[in-house]
Amino acid sequence: MKKIEVVQNILEANETIASRNQQLLDKHKVFAVNIMSAPGAGKTSLILQTLTRLKSRLNIAVIEGDVASTIDAEKVQSKTKAVVQINTRNMPESCSLMAAMIEPALKDLPLDNIELLLIENVGNLICPSEFTLGEHKRVVISSVPEGDDKPIKYPLIFIDADVVIINKMDLLPYVDFDIAAFRRSIAGLNPKAEIFQLSCKTGEGIERWCSWVLEQVKTSAAKL
Amino acid sequence: MKKIEVVQNILEANETIASRNQQLLDKHKVFAVNIMSAPGAGKTSLILQTLTRLKSRLNIAVIEGDVASTIDAEKVQSKTKAVVQINTRNMPESCSLMAAMIEPALKDLPLDNIELLLIENVGNLICPSEFTLGEHKRVVISSVPEGDDKPIKYPLIFIDADVVIINKMDLLPYVDFDIAAFRRSIAGLNPKAEIFQLSCKTGEGIERWCSWVLEQVKTSAAKL
Repeated sequence: MKKIEVVQNILEANETIASRNQQLLDKHKVFAVNIMSAPGAGKTSLILQTLTRLKSRLNIAVIEGDVASTIDAEKVQSKTKAVVQINTRNMPESCSLMAAMIEPALKDLPLDNIELLLIENVGNLICPSEFTLGEHKRVVISSVPEGDDKPIKYPLIFIDADVVIINKMDLLPYVDFDIAAFRRSIAGLNPKAEIFQLSCKTGEGIERWCSWVLEQVKTSAAKL
Repeated sequence: MKKIEVVQNILEANETIASRNQQLLDKHKVFAVNIMSAPGAGKTSLILQTLTRLKSRLNIAVIEGDVASTIDAEKVQSKTKAVVQINTRNMPESCSLMAAMIEPALKDLPLDNIELLLIENVGNLICPSEFTLGEHKRVVISSVPEGDDKPIKYPLIFIDADVVIINKMDLLPYVDFDIAAFRRSIAGLNPKAEIFQLSCKTGEGIERWCSWVLEQVKTSAAKL
């Protein structure tokens, strides 16, 4: 079966708006990261850890995507005032953020005062792989209790990732998760992806991730 | 924003085919269960446990839905020969099984010799809530490490569930998951849902789930 034409049109329209979003972000020297994962893998926790460690060094904004509720945005609000919530429940595509949802959100943010924009996508390993938002880097989080077979079962999202994070490393002793097998799967799908092993709960490995983020923001700003 | 018309048409067509699937299942006295969850919450593990405990008492078939790969179907094949794999990767809707994908799968199964059909949906808490398949009961699995806020963030799939399973109870000591808060959320969204707490890894609570399945199959067969 082929993708029906209307789907193709939606994807093309999304690309156009995503490019426009990226041009706007570049104009204001804002580095944007699209954070994707299955529900409960730790997107919000990673954002909270990143805000805690980097908010004294970078001005950070957050866009929170969710089907329903504002609970993640409320958690993030304690660490930065630059937060926009997007609820996708009644939108044409509810299983992913789309570039057209990011465009108005950018208008609500003080872009001149922001260096890093963290975008928390809807919890889903399938739909977000189809829609770029205008981000500079794509991050996928897998968590240890989900099992090491996720790259094999949901390959597309891992193929396009710049970074793959293995979260909840603190649970490794209690579950069957083969780190080497997971890394082999990623190497097969996407050998250029950076891999970080960490635990947002204990803080283990967060520093290496934050150093990477800092370096990316600086390198990107130097180019613009 | 309203759902675009084409989406509405797809949903209506799906309902028609789902009714046809259910009529076929009823004609052959096959009781069908649609098992949904986020990636890695334990759909395959629940099916394997159910097969192990009930295969001497019921003839069980399995339909395995996945974006890509056949690894779940291979696991299940050791316990029943009546397995059909559906890969959604190149289908118009890849984030959920649809009734039109189940229809040809039913033709590949020896329905006259089957009493229970377990359908493993694609790992996703959003898309599968929109598509009925012809099943008699809808089961949603949440796992403890995902966090207790999933019903609030993905309400639709929980609203339509007949059963909600809390899996990976063995990990409860190591994560922040408030069972009472989770149960309160379900009670608010869907007070009629049966809730089972279990661990597919240790087997804790599986017996109660299997008794429920057995009773459902018998009650349904008696009515037809």
